[in-house]
Amino acid sequence: MCIKIGILTMSDRASAGVYEDLSGKAIMDTLNDYLSSEWKSVYEIVPDDQTLIEEALKDMVDVQECCLIITTGGTGPAKRDITPEATEAVCDKMMPGFGELMRQVSLQYVPTAILSRQTAGIRGKSLIINLPGKPKSIRECLDAVFPAVPYCIDLLEGPFLECNEEAIKPFRPQQK
Amino acid sequence: MCIKIGILTMSDRASAGVYEDLSGKAIMDTLNDYLSSEWKSVYEIVPDDQTLIEEALKDMVDVQECCLIITTGGTGPAKRDITPEATEAVCDKMMPGFGELMRQVSLQYVPTAILSRQTAGIRGKSLIINLPGKPKSIRECLDAVFPAVPYCIDLLEGPFLECNEEAIKPFRPQQK
Amino acid sequence: MCIKIGILTMSDRASAGVYEDLSGKAIMDTLNDYLSSEWKSVYEIVPDDQTLIEEALKDMVDVQECCLIITTGGTGPAKRDITPEATEAVCDKMMPGFGELMRQVSLQYVPTAILSRQTAGIRGKSLIINLPGKPKSIRECLDAVFPAVPYCIDLLEGPFLECNEEAIKPFRPQQK
Repeated sequence: MCIKIGILTMSDRASAGVYEDLSGKAIMDTLNDYLSSEWKSVYEIVPDDQTLIEEALKDMVDVQECCLIITTGGTGPAKRDITPEATEAVCDKMMPGFGELMRQVSLQYVPTAILSRQTAGIRGKSLIINLPGKPKSIRECLDAVFPAVPYCIDLLEGPFLECNEEAIKPFRPQQK
Repeated sequence: MCIKIGILTMSDRASAGVYEDLSGKAIMDTLNDYLSSEWKSVYEIVPDDQTLIEEALKDMVDVQECCLIITTGGTGPAKRDITPEATEAVCDKMMPGFGELMRQVSLQYVPTAILSRQTAGIRGKSLIINLPGKPKSIRECLDAVFPAVPYCIDLLEGPFLECNEEAIKPFRPQQK
Repeated sequence: MCIKIGILTMSDRASAGVYEDLSGKAIMDTLNDYLSSEWKSVYEIVPDDQTLIEEALKDMVDVQECCLIITTGGTGPAKRDITPEATEAVCDKMMPGFGELMRQVSLQYVPTAILSRQTAGIRGKSLIINLPGKPKSIRECLDAVFPAVPYCIDLLEGPFLECNEEAIKPFRPQQK
């Protein structure tokens, strides 16, 4: 089974070509570091529009069959920040532990980490994780939560992700 | 007033008799350790079916008048894991602090603690707390949150729970 | 632009004059300590009634144009505690990081901190933050979250809050 991972950047300005999507690139670089399994990225960049975000997420899950989708941007308190709402709208169940842990880790760097509303959830057999929009928080957040991602995808009956253990140590509990 | 506590195990396999319900037993043992008040358990084991879970919770609250209900199982990301949704569906108000603290404590043991979607809430005068399904996490999670449980039940105008203070120290703030 | 901040106390007893609203006063004192900008308070005290709370919040945001509203009381598990539900009902988006951090900080003092259901959210251009009802937890909670508040209000296109840096250090990240 080919492993497909979606990378979805939400940004009015980057989608209009005003600046480069450094965060999407940071996600790509980090996943290349982490994964020893072969994988293929499905990349899209959309403006901060709830309908467009929902359509992009649904396409990545339902049509492209990505087992994992990582978003960046649109998680703050500003009027156009709507990624968590779009994520919740398309998900079957929410995973509050991801946002809690990422905020806790980011709080070690900046007190404004509590302004990030990022969450995670499951649609079908796919795990969707929101990351903040700042390029330098991408690695911080993924380092915190990624050890749980391969086992989560196992539980969703997705592909078996193998990792470069020097970069990240996935944890798979013994089955009871 | 007789103190009744519900113990509800969610498991397709245990409810079919495929294996023993070790987690339900661990809850019973832990409560026997904690409580010096006399109490009576109301125990049920159901498959991971949202309607059946909701019915069992409603029966324990509305008919059996349990002041506290502790569930185990069905909190993960897999398709059949539906306990948090069933809990939220029957509760009047949610208590996010329980899930946050339990995940934080479990994170000290396993990075996959963020996959647990367990929550807590109030229905009528009853506190419902979800625990994960793994037997060894029962005590860890209860040790973390139980010190707040007797005071919570006081606030819900339920029975006064007395504890063995060597096993667990309940905290009741001075009234303002 | 005149900086207006709402202070909303929820209490059946304080609103009936049974006792003094020490928590509202503690919020006022703390904000006077924190802020070097001139500001004006909009103060109200209401009973624990969801409709009255929602009306007070809407008035403070939509009519009084407060950029920040701090509530106290009504965050516990008891039947009349309904502040988080009223807050969520009037908000466009929720800010889960505030409640998470405040509970985490309060947990250093009392294990019953997990019983507090306080949250925060955005309505229009206003940030609404719930605090617990106990006077002594006001300062603890505000010390934890206030460093992120001025930047949040910047992102909401509200007034620029300046602080007494000996009392509280606001954090404004460099724009990307």
